[in-house]
Formats: sequence, structure tokens, C-alpha cells
Amino acid sequence: MQKKPLILVTNDDGVTAPGLKTLIEVMCDIGEVVVVAPDSPQSGMGHAITLNSVLHLDELTKKGDAYKTYSSSGTPADCVKIAINEVLNRKPDLCVSGINHGSNSSINVIYSGTMSAAIEAGIEGIPAIGFSLLDYSWDANFEPSKPYIKKIAALVLEKGLPTDVILNVNIPNLSEEDLKGIKICRQARANWKEKFDKRQTPQGRDYYWLTGTFENYDDGEDTDEAALEKGYVAVVPVKFDLTAHHAIQELNNWKLND
Amino acid sequence: MQKKPLILVTNDDGVTAPGLKTLIEVMCDIGEVVVVAPDSPQSGMGHAITLNSVLHLDELTKKGDAYKTYSSSGTPADCVKIAINEVLNRKPDLCVSGINHGSNSSINVIYSGTMSAAIEAGIEGIPAIGFSLLDYSWDANFEPSKPYIKKIAALVLEKGLPTDVILNVNIPNLSEEDLKGIKICRQARANWKEKFDKRQTPQGRDYYWLTGTFENYDDGEDTDEAALEKGYVAVVPVKFDLTAHHAIQELNNWKLND
Repeated sequence: MQKKPLILVTNDDGVTAPGLKTLIEVMCDIGEVVVVAPDSPQSGMGHAITLNSVLHLDELTKKGDAYKTYSSSGTPADCVKIAINEVLNRKPDLCVSGINHGSNSSINVIYSGTMSAAIEAGIEGIPAIGFSLLDYSWDANFEPSKPYIKKIAALVLEKGLPTDVILNVNIPNLSEEDLKGIKICRQARANWKEKFDKRQTPQGRDYYWLTGTFENYDDGEDTDEAALEKGYVAVVPVKFDLTAHHAIQELNNWKLND
Repeated sequence: MQKKPLILVTNDDGVTAPGLKTLIEVMCDIGEVVVVAPDSPQSGMGHAITLNSVLHLDELTKKGDAYKTYSSSGTPADCVKIAINEVLNRKPDLCVSGINHGSNSSINVIYSGTMSAAIEAGIEGIPAIGFSLLDYSWDANFEPSKPYIKKIAALVLEKGLPTDVILNVNIPNLSEEDLKGIKICRQARANWKEKFDKRQTPQGRDYYWLTGTFENYDDGEDTDEAALEKGYVAVVPVKFDLTAHHAIQELNNWKLND
């Protein structure tokens, strides 16, 4: 009998998140699952790692569970590092992160703890996918996502991914009938127009809440935003070489050493 | 008389870091400076932003200071957001971040709070540069860096940067005589081989410190690691479109909708 693929499951909403539970359920259909997820919500953690404080790792597996579950006090990227180095006895065949409660499309990939976990696995040479549903609520309906997640994960297990490429998968918040299919996309050029909500503590000290509105500056038909708008699951291949290769020639013309 | 350019200065080592002081000193030579930096060290914060707690912003400017200084309880990316929205009365002409105590070359760009501040400014359309010295110590010698930082910042003010490009500048820890010049580079393919140092609390609970060794898998002459090794200041143009454009065609051939 063939050995089942080993699948590391993590997220950034924390080990109790319903999105994580759904992802575990789908992955149990296609492999041997180990869960290492943050012990508290870590949204917006970007690619943070814990350098100046210690990490805890607790096993939460209950009797009769079909898979092992651990929680860590670290960030999503820490969870992947500690899973690979301290929990798993072999390199996983796949790392999946999510299902995030909320979008990680376009510029959100930069701020996303979900994607940083997947990217961390990618840096370690493990095929990795981040999944996000476009619904921030805790009781979001993850059911329609399931067949898409299963299909994409199974294909990645079968075919592998191009070298140093990670998938960022965003799923519209639609019923099964309204989901149109899957599109491979590029990241739209968008950003957040911040607004700080200024308040005062009961003691009279100012403080701020970060809020903002999402602005898409990119009308491209081939963007993740356009695909999501039309009801498609958007798959963006992501890399961690941030070099703007196209700018190298122009900068060389600056003759910085004259 | 021409208006002096407005320069936002930030970092990730916190508002008291000697590297920040050096960067302020150099920038005061070429523009009007406003400092908004984290109130505590934020190394390894990646592109984290503060979504689930509040932010404080305190003015630290002392009588007779030539520039205004603020500290924020947020991450480096938060500092840039709050500076633009709550502190500055016009869009800055330049944002500089650093001088980081320690390297942000190759894969470190992903984990770097210094670079996340610069990238955040870049997302907002502000020409931005992160500076790092390859010396982790608090009393690092920043003197030899100064002429390089001044030259690069002045050139960016003069010429602007290509659209959506940010500069990641790493400086070898060498004397003025031993620094060879400036090289435009690409990010080397490298990563950290983690090792977790497992210990026990006085109460007998396990905990971990994240440690590791840096591994460079990339012999390219055109990489930042190669330039630094040879004594050059390495300038990598960085972008925040993480799309692996080269992988789109291959993924389309997977026929995900069959």
C-alpha cells in the first residue's frame, strides 16, 4: 500500500477557527494530517517571526482524533518553522494554510499571516497553498469551497509546483451553484486607503484604531480582483524573490559609482 | 528659495536605536526630517500591521530639536501609515527606514521590519529606501555608511524611482577605505536553517528559542550576497507584486476546470 502524503495544516486565525477545521476535514480525505496552528488569532501578522521572545508548543490532540494537533504561541511563520523542526518526523509533502476568514487577494498577500505561513513552507522547499474565503465572519459558510480546495490540493500533490512558487487561492463568498470555476491570475495593483479612528482612553490619552477602505487601481481582466468579482476562485502563483528585475538596468544607468 | 524635500524617517529597531540617529543626521543634510518610529524594537516583524489592538502615538520632540520625533506602539508598517495619515501635513518626498542593525539581504527582506516600512511607503506611492548595516551590535560603527546613504538618497530625490520599486540597501561592516562602491543586485536565493533551542521554565514547562544558520544556495555574481562578500554596498530594487508571472502559463496547462 502506498504511503499517504503528509500534509501540514496551519492558519493565522488560530487553532480554534472554523476555517481551519474545514481545511483539516478536506485534507484528511487526501492525506495524513498534522496541525500546528497559532494559539491565538494572528491576522495581519505578515511575515513576522519571533526573535525576541520564547515560543511555546502544546499538543492538543484528543483521544480518538484522526490527526495530531499542536498549538504554538508564535506567528504563522513560526508555526511552520517549529512544525518542520520539532513536530514532524519527515518533510511534509504539502503545507496548506487557512481557510482564512477574509480575503488575501491583491495587496493583502503582503499583510497576510495565512500567506506568510504558506510562503515560509515554500522557502523550505515544501509545496504550499494558502486558502482564503471572502467572508470575515466567524460563522462563514465554508461548504462551497471544499471541492475547489480538494481539487487544487490534490493537483499540487500530483504535479508539484514550479520551483519557489506558492499558490494564493481566494474563494468568493458564493453558493456552490454560483461559483464559476477556477482562474489563474496575477495580483491586482490595489491598496488600502487608511483612516485612523482617533479616540481617548478613560484617562484622557489619545489612541487610534487602524481602519481603511480597499482601493483597486487595476482594471486588468487577468487580475485576482477581476476573477473574484466574476465569481471565480482566483489562484495567484506567488514568489518570494522580491527583486524588481525589470528595474535593474535603469538603476545601473544611474552610474552610482561616479 | 526652493522648499526642502520632506523626508519621513523610520526603522524597526525602535526610536532609541543608534542606527536611526545616524540616518536622521544624514537626512537632515538633504531635507526636512520627521521621525515616526516604533517605541520598542520590532525586528523580524515582517509586514505585520496592528488590526486587533489600538495604537499609541507620542511626540518626543525636545526643545531646540531641528526635527520632530514621534514614537508609536505599532509595527514599522503601522508607523508609516500613521505618519502619512496623522502626523505629516503633506505627502513626503522620500521615506527612509533604518539604519538597521543587521543584514536585510537576500531572504531576510521577507522578515524585515525595516524593509516592510519602506515597502509600505512604496505601496503608498512614496519613493522609499531601507538601509541596513551588516553588524547586529548596538554600538555598530555607522560612520563609513554615511556617504553612501547620502548619495543614494539624494539620487532618489533627484531621479525618483521606477513605479512601485523600493530600494533595499545593505552595507558591509567595513571601514571607509575597504568599502568598494555600490552594486545594483538581485536578491540571492538563500534561507535560514532553523534550529530550536529547547529549554525548560523553572516550573518545568518546555519552551523554545528560534535560532538558525544562514545558508546561501546561490553562487550568482549578480546577487546581493556576492556584492556584500566583495565589499560592495548592495542595492536591490524590490517590488510588492509577488505574482510569479513566469508560472502562470504552466498552471493554465493544468486545466483546473476540467
